[in-house]
Amino acid sequence: MADSEDITNIALRRSIFYPAAEIYSNSPSGFWEFGPVGEAIRRKIIEFWRKEFVQKEGFVEIYGAQILPEAVFKASGHLTNFNDPIVQCKKCKALHRADQLIAEKIKEIVPESMSIEELSKLIKHHEVECPKCKSKEFTEVRKFNMMMKVDIGATGDIPCYLRPETCQSIFLDFERIYKTSRQTLPLGIAQAGCSFRNEIAPRNTLLRAREFGQMELEIFFNPKKANDFEKFSTIENNEINLMLSEKAGITPIKAKDAVEKKQVSSKMIAYYLAKWQMLWEKLGVPKEKMRFRKLADDEKAFYAAEAFDFEVLTSLGWIELTACNNRTDYDLKGHAKESKKELSVKEEGDSESFIPHIFELSDGIDRPVWVLLDLAFRKEKRGPEERIYLSLAPRIAPYFAGIFPLVKKDGLLEKGREIFKELESHGFDLVFDEKGSIGKRYARIDEIGVPYAITVDYDTMKDGTVTLRDRDSLEQKRVKAEKLPELLWKLQLGLEKF
Amino acid sequence: MADSEDITNIALRRSIFYPAAEIYSNSPSGFWEFGPVGEAIRRKIIEFWRKEFVQKEGFVEIYGAQILPEAVFKASGHLTNFNDPIVQCKKCKALHRADQLIAEKIKEIVPESMSIEELSKLIKHHEVECPKCKSKEFTEVRKFNMMMKVDIGATGDIPCYLRPETCQSIFLDFERIYKTSRQTLPLGIAQAGCSFRNEIAPRNTLLRAREFGQMELEIFFNPKKANDFEKFSTIENNEINLMLSEKAGITPIKAKDAVEKKQVSSKMIAYYLAKWQMLWEKLGVPKEKMRFRKLADDEKAFYAAEAFDFEVLTSLGWIELTACNNRTDYDLKGHAKESKKELSVKEEGDSESFIPHIFELSDGIDRPVWVLLDLAFRKEKRGPEERIYLSLAPRIAPYFAGIFPLVKKDGLLEKGREIFKELESHGFDLVFDEKGSIGKRYARIDEIGVPYAITVDYDTMKDGTVTLRDRDSLEQKRVKAEKLPELLWKLQLGLEKF
Repeated sequence: MADSEDITNIALRRSIFYPAAEIYSNSPSGFWEFGPVGEAIRRKIIEFWRKEFVQKEGFVEIYGAQILPEAVFKASGHLTNFNDPIVQCKKCKALHRADQLIAEKIKEIVPESMSIEELSKLIKHHEVECPKCKSKEFTEVRKFNMMMKVDIGATGDIPCYLRPETCQSIFLDFERIYKTSRQTLPLGIAQAGCSFRNEIAPRNTLLRAREFGQMELEIFFNPKKANDFEKFSTIENNEINLMLSEKAGITPIKAKDAVEKKQVSSKMIAYYLAKWQMLWEKLGVPKEKMRFRKLADDEKAFYAAEAFDFEVLTSLGWIELTACNNRTDYDLKGHAKESKKELSVKEEGDSESFIPHIFELSDGIDRPVWVLLDLAFRKEKRGPEERIYLSLAPRIAPYFAGIFPLVKKDGLLEKGREIFKELESHGFDLVFDEKGSIGKRYARIDEIGVPYAITVDYDTMKDGTVTLRDRDSLEQKRVKAEKLPELLWKLQLGLEKF
Repeated sequence: MADSEDITNIALRRSIFYPAAEIYSNSPSGFWEFGPVGEAIRRKIIEFWRKEFVQKEGFVEIYGAQILPEAVFKASGHLTNFNDPIVQCKKCKALHRADQLIAEKIKEIVPESMSIEELSKLIKHHEVECPKCKSKEFTEVRKFNMMMKVDIGATGDIPCYLRPETCQSIFLDFERIYKTSRQTLPLGIAQAGCSFRNEIAPRNTLLRAREFGQMELEIFFNPKKANDFEKFSTIENNEINLMLSEKAGITPIKAKDAVEKKQVSSKMIAYYLAKWQMLWEKLGVPKEKMRFRKLADDEKAFYAAEAFDFEVLTSLGWIELTACNNRTDYDLKGHAKESKKELSVKEEGDSESFIPHIFELSDGIDRPVWVLLDLAFRKEKRGPEERIYLSLAPRIAPYFAGIFPLVKKDGLLEKGREIFKELESHGFDLVFDEKGSIGKRYARIDEIGVPYAITVDYDTMKDGTVTLRDRDSLEQKRVKAEKLPELLWKLQLGLEKF
């Protein structure tokens, strides 16, 4: 298993991700860039989510503006509610998140619902120290709004904000998309894009950044019909890793039993939880390392009636990947009121019009990149040497195979290029490397998670075979170069094992 | 040919694109959203650019943060140079771009290099009127910086800006990517992402927005070796639509002649211009509607030594799609100086280290969407009716085919769904529609540019054939349903004509 330093080290060494504007010494923390390898992994995660969850589920996808006017966040509640409690050390002037300082001291989670007065009291009561200068003198706790303001117009007279969550665009567009999509509820609208939060203490690289990707799905539904959900039968016997409380632990339960026992409020929601779990299994998260943690009332976001955090066990412990929230009609109601627009719907068979409820699967993009890298990290002793590789699922590996001519002379280089071109024309993402010893070339692609290596040697020139090497088992076999497209295609789709 | 209103109308009617936060009446202009159809087109344009131009050319792609610290824009020159000249009407207080007001009055382009004093004089001299209130009394022209500021940190003490061009991330990352990519110059680094400009007068929907997509390619090269470019021979006889001056007009010239006559400064640059033209031909721009307009010295951006605007003829006249700039070593030199980092390189065979020069192909994303919609728009009289369709290239059509059961009864609906599932499993993007008359269903997919329609009727139940209809010619043929995957695949790749 990796420790979190391993991921940072490999990320920086191979430019998978790295700090933004890092050539400038005073660049703010919490902004990250993805290099070619990281960008390929990032994009493949999004594409797989899109294919498996958006398209196959019959959802639609939009792409909205990141800057939105103030009225949007008045309606959404973010202007008043999207705050972190902060304190300042009176001695060294450092700013800290009050709840985090307390949590680190008492080794317990501090509920989000706690007031700033209560937090001030707790800081004094537990004699919390400033992590920087060890002073115990703090200002009173105050609220700090995490949204980033941008003033638009030549006189800066149009107050706007960078969206703190991508779903707001979806809520704003719902009415238009609903009318033009010619679909009936439940209607899923998805978006992959960026969100922005002025975190006071960005940390753990991609896990808490100030600018970060989100892929969000907002499913608009009629709460009276949430159990009238035909597709449920296809997964009713699938087990969901539910955790109803810390004490109960993870209790895998069949979707149909979870609904019957009212652990999940409807067939519709249970269906998407089961499907969500399947998505992440396909992306490489072992079943035993995932759970849906049901949130207690004081942990839930201010808009949620029912909430599960989809969490994955990493080298840093359980990390939240996805907020699965039943947001009820909170969002559309708020926007309808503030915009004075009619956002209710009435469909065939409905006796009256109503404001649709929303169930969301709100996922990060950067976080899954980190989590999947963390889960894939392997360090093995092999004699005197250490072997590091990423056992990434082939569908999110940055390249599917490396192509290596053993030497540059005697036509091997040209033969290698020929095979590269042929495989590229079949749509495979490949990396070509002719420099350095073959062992080093293997090590380099192992480290970025490329599943296969194809080596062109003198036998290739004689009998047309190449060596195909498997990243995880290190097994090698000789195969005819002409058979590669079909073989790689089967390996990619999982139709054949190495 | 379309007029520009046609595109706006169809975009709003079919939710291809529409204003952000449009349910709020006072939302600022210049922010747009893409609905499912527009997002599919947008994404397919990016994906084709990535495949054809980034991957096939051996370039790498990064994904950078949109918020960057002040030092970056001090070095890039944007803090001092990225200004629009603005004037305010003394009577109605409306703000205008001074150069645009003058240009509209004198019907001539006003050079970017003109000083604010000269612009003030011209406004008086030509007795320019306020377009809003017709007053001729204006304030003096002043400079207005178009960057959007964002203050980061709990005390807002870290001044940052939303990037006004995506390429800045590429310049910042060059050193790291160069070192870890193990490639030699020329090295192309690409990025698709968002940029932000606080335009005073956003207009023409996607053509001048405040938040907009860019797909940029920055090619780092050794200026001494720009003619040592092997791949040039593959396109040396291709004609490039060069326009050296307004007077000379478009003069298609072979790449090798353009280099020989020094109309283009190097084989490397001529190669990419020729390839760029090919890319847009494949995306549906007719050859006679594209040109590379060589910019005169007073038109070029402040960093460019040699600049071509790649322009496309639309219903609004020639529109700039791509800035093709030879930026020399301006960018890396600026960042090296400001960051005090060594950004020069020295490769095998180089006698001394040098700062790489940059040739860029800086393209929008939203603009191409608009331009390709505009070029694809068709309005035809058919008897008493009018037929509207988008003749989009199949590779960027939002869906490849529509599947329509003639009626819902007698098993046709189920048969249609079966064919849908079968074709979907082959990776085709499809739209299924069982509602309304077949004629209306055809019209609906024609309007969003879907190339083919597959109709399931009573004969399908008897002999397994369906009707395949071609969007542009309206021709129909009967084909066996089981032959559809292969036939559609050939149509998609252009291996077969309808």
